[in-house]
Amino acid sequence: MNDHPPDTHGAESDSSVDEFLITDEEIREITTAVRAQDSDTVHGFLEDLSGADTAELLSKVSDEDRDELLFMYGDALDPLVFTELDPELRRKALSSMPPAVVAGILSALESDDALDLIINLDETLQQEIIRKLSVKRRLAVEEGLSFPEDSAGRLMQREVVAIPQFWTAGKTIDYLRNAAADLPEDFFDIFVVDPSYHVTGQIPLNKLVRADRSALMDSLKLEDIHPIPATMDQEEVAHIFRREDAASAPVVDRDGRLIGVITIDDVIDVIDEEAQEDILRLAGVEHGDLYRAVWATTGTRFRWLFLNLLTAIMASVVISFFDATLEQIVALAILMPIVASMGGNAGTQALTVAVRALATRELSGANAWRIIWKEGLVGMLNGLAFALIAGVVTALWFDNNMVLGAVIASAMAVNLFAAGIFGAGIPIFLDRIGSDPAISSTVFLTTVTDVIGFFAFLGLATIFLV
Amino acid sequence: MNDHPPDTHGAESDSSVDEFLITDEEIREITTAVRAQDSDTVHGFLEDLSGADTAELLSKVSDEDRDELLFMYGDALDPLVFTELDPELRRKALSSMPPAVVAGILSALESDDALDLIINLDETLQQEIIRKLSVKRRLAVEEGLSFPEDSAGRLMQREVVAIPQFWTAGKTIDYLRNAAADLPEDFFDIFVVDPSYHVTGQIPLNKLVRADRSALMDSLKLEDIHPIPATMDQEEVAHIFRREDAASAPVVDRDGRLIGVITIDDVIDVIDEEAQEDILRLAGVEHGDLYRAVWATTGTRFRWLFLNLLTAIMASVVISFFDATLEQIVALAILMPIVASMGGNAGTQALTVAVRALATRELSGANAWRIIWKEGLVGMLNGLAFALIAGVVTALWFDNNMVLGAVIASAMAVNLFAAGIFGAGIPIFLDRIGSDPAISSTVFLTTVTDVIGFFAFLGLATIFLV
Repeated sequence: MNDHPPDTHGAESDSSVDEFLITDEEIREITTAVRAQDSDTVHGFLEDLSGADTAELLSKVSDEDRDELLFMYGDALDPLVFTELDPELRRKALSSMPPAVVAGILSALESDDALDLIINLDETLQQEIIRKLSVKRRLAVEEGLSFPEDSAGRLMQREVVAIPQFWTAGKTIDYLRNAAADLPEDFFDIFVVDPSYHVTGQIPLNKLVRADRSALMDSLKLEDIHPIPATMDQEEVAHIFRREDAASAPVVDRDGRLIGVITIDDVIDVIDEEAQEDILRLAGVEHGDLYRAVWATTGTRFRWLFLNLLTAIMASVVISFFDATLEQIVALAILMPIVASMGGNAGTQALTVAVRALATRELSGANAWRIIWKEGLVGMLNGLAFALIAGVVTALWFDNNMVLGAVIASAMAVNLFAAGIFGAGIPIFLDRIGSDPAISSTVFLTTVTDVIGFFAFLGLATIFLV
Repeated sequence: MNDHPPDTHGAESDSSVDEFLITDEEIREITTAVRAQDSDTVHGFLEDLSGADTAELLSKVSDEDRDELLFMYGDALDPLVFTELDPELRRKALSSMPPAVVAGILSALESDDALDLIINLDETLQQEIIRKLSVKRRLAVEEGLSFPEDSAGRLMQREVVAIPQFWTAGKTIDYLRNAAADLPEDFFDIFVVDPSYHVTGQIPLNKLVRADRSALMDSLKLEDIHPIPATMDQEEVAHIFRREDAASAPVVDRDGRLIGVITIDDVIDVIDEEAQEDILRLAGVEHGDLYRAVWATTGTRFRWLFLNLLTAIMASVVISFFDATLEQIVALAILMPIVASMGGNAGTQALTVAVRALATRELSGANAWRIIWKEGLVGMLNGLAFALIAGVVTALWFDNNMVLGAVIASAMAVNLFAAGIFGAGIPIFLDRIGSDPAISSTVFLTTVTDVIGFFAFLGLATIFLV
């Protein structure tokens, strides 16, 4: 135990992650060597790079250079490289390699990583690879594939350390020493099981090492443990890890028997994925777009833009109701995008807060109405502020036309209030009916703020200005 | 070690996180009891709830109920509850409690959690609380506060387990047994230090427990360790943990001497925060908006909306250049929002991909141009597709006006190509000049797509239709 004080730190920042991560410069050097077919230099670089570095290298070179690297130097790559690759890139890379080589990579990995690698491949390719695995590994992979997508069963590794209830700390340590080679690569907790393999306790290694040899393992158990059903969705798993600050958790089958363990490093990937998912979905893009070919990317983006085109056309239809008014007062055409755009932006603010709060479970039935109401109030207050600003600017811009100023001010106030209510309300409603609030909220919201914005502005103008 | 096969799992999903998390129903029951001043019921509930559950309870009740809970039952709350609270809510809660009570809570926590609690408070309140701490804790907190915001030094806990190089596994375990009470609550690794306290190695506990008693600790060390400078930014820390799949990492001062340890649970909070930051910044909202008072929230949102107002006014100015054209052809006023809105949406897609890829370091100098070019191509292809669709729809809508159709088609193609280039290019440029790409990208992008969209559409119309 140490409370050794630092004697210097502070102002001058000498901290940089760059010294031990791969640099753009190195990537350029390797690419040059690959193109020059200078295999000694490439091998030299690859030996020095960690798995994560090599994965970064593969993800940052062009498609041609990557294919060349995989084809010429694939056998020199650490199998761990593939676990670090982006899923889309991993699928591409493994699909381009012979099934036997992929099977070799799978055999060198822990069961959860092996499953991760094979999961996104085409089913025929999957079967080809699986046939080339050892019987034991094959059964493990097939069992993993039988769990629902994104479930705890897919996330877990089957290699766990479990001991009976009546063992002492000393006996456990002796067992670990003797079984050393058979133990999982990394583990943080030991699970206590009864004779029928039900989990009765979890003991962090740091409790074991500080216990007396004679201490009963049963007495070292954590008070409450949360066995995770294999079918639980991975987002719920992440939620549990986050709440419990656990380093690992036991996974059980429907009868509550221990079948595997999920460790925190798997959960970090889930958390990253989850956070990524929301931000990408709000913008209508898919994970992996960075690595997908131009044509495929165009396709995935098209669908979202098409939806937005329908929204935009709907807004245009609303505008067309007022064509007579617009013909008389061209200032309306100039000003109307302001009202719609402010509504859209204010709504997106409320929507983003609600979508994230739903994802982190900070928003549920208990506080949903309070939050919708609060966002409505915030929208109303900002609506009044921008009504004043836009009203004054407009009146000054268009020859002191006070009525025009009053019209844009009223439309602004109405639209920003609606933006707050609907911005928070739409995702909450979608979540309540079981839809993903991140996927379609923005389209609905834009429709609402465009329609209300144009209707209010042009409608009021028709009444008071024509 | 266990490869026990599950015999049942699959189709039927019996997995739910709800059984061991607090439910909306329970929150309602507790709120009712609080309002009825039924303290026995409230105490009963609070005893059963974990720290995370109580934090969730506090975050989901109204401000009044929360104040009542803290005032009446604050002393019955586990100090850990406060570490689980949202930072904004934590600041509110602790600010409302007497400094002596807060000091008591701080004393019951590990050094990193204590620091976390005090960090967001007003400086005068901080000083008041610090004065009430024990000398040792006070020094620790003051030292922590001296590190830069969001640095490794603020994240680390000072309690670490360090041993000299020449110890054996047996001696280490004996030491841990004897020092049991003085050890940190939780730890995953033991650090090897030389006499001047420089870190020379890191040994995961699972390597220690499977080693022979006679094994030298020096021989169990991991091959490469990454000591983290105390001044390193927390995002870089998270990046290292993610890449290295580490459970903990040593923190060193400028002379490379061990001063603390960062564990993975602290890093998960950083990862959550980080991911949250990007999505919130893109929409112009701040973390904590869910818990901030209406008035304060209105203020933080106002700034962003004001920027957007300037953008919208700039777009209106562009439109006003073409007022003579608009006066002649009202169809242009009806159609022009379509071009701008499609550009904005296509640009946001490219922008979101680039912002995330910059955050995860999948995008750097090595592939920046390739990605800008790819997004340009994708924009061009979708631009051509939507040019066709919008052109045909427009011609049909407005009495077979083929020229009007051709004008909107050309403007659409130009704007979507620009949206792709600028959508990817703006965040990359901002990142290159050292700005946060998530903060201001959207404003710049909207300006670009609005201006180009309106200019192209109304300009072409002026040339070909007037």
